[in-house]
Amino acid sequence: MEPRVSLITLGVPDLAEARAFYVDGLGWEPALEVPDQVIFFQAGHGLMLSLFGAEQLAADAHGPDVPGSPPAGFTLAHNVGSSAEVDAALARALAAGATPVKEAQPTDWGGYHAYVADPAGVLWEIAFNPSWSVAPDGTPTI
Amino acid sequence: MEPRVSLITLGVPDLAEARAFYVDGLGWEPALEVPDQVIFFQAGHGLMLSLFGAEQLAADAHGPDVPGSPPAGFTLAHNVGSSAEVDAALARALAAGATPVKEAQPTDWGGYHAYVADPAGVLWEIAFNPSWSVAPDGTPTI
Repeated sequence: MEPRVSLITLGVPDLAEARAFYVDGLGWEPALEVPDQVIFFQAGHGLMLSLFGAEQLAADAHGPDVPGSPPAGFTLAHNVGSSAEVDAALARALAAGATPVKEAQPTDWGGYHAYVADPAGVLWEIAFNPSWSVAPDGTPTI
Repeated sequence: MEPRVSLITLGVPDLAEARAFYVDGLGWEPALEVPDQVIFFQAGHGLMLSLFGAEQLAADAHGPDVPGSPPAGFTLAHNVGSSAEVDAALARALAAGATPVKEAQPTDWGGYHAYVADPAGVLWEIAFNPSWSVAPDGTPTI
């Protein structure tokens, strides 16, 4: 697992409120938006920042039935190039002492991912997204 | 305020524990380290990820005397090129409905910064750091 962040996801309690602030207020232009579900902004070279419902984010990371899921939070995603690379990065993270949170598994968006927590509880998603690419100028496509 | 993240800071309850995980466990090489204080890693093109004590991060963002400072947390920093640009970006964020957290002011590291919160409580630092630069290949210097 390399020191590389591909995606910062903010789990927000009210997506419409967050949209009003970032899109209407600050004038940020979404790179991709699924209405009432998720909004992605390009936040750097090869970097996306996304707004996602806090409950949905907790469910994505923990599964829906875990009590004490955070009401709001954030995750850092480390994208790799294949499912096998997810498995390898996950093994490396667990060997380093990461806490397993979600076993590596196929996702409903056609990829493959796992979640681990660092010692402070920061959630890292290790993901293969076949739709993810970064153009030479740094523009990510998701 | 543009959609650009320069620095992700993780406020960790135990810096030595976090260091053991990221540096010793994962083998990440610090780009800059002040022992027992802060560790920076390059996490992308023009992007740093830092480990900082949770109490220190809360004090940096809120001031030391604010009750209810988060025990651990994170901040996203938006770096700009001058103190005047901090003031302008701060005004833009406040006009968009950001909650003021820390007034724009000189920092003890020779820069100038302010903190605001988005509607979900996510803390953004708007900062001018005269030591910050990004090389053409994406390597940040701090």
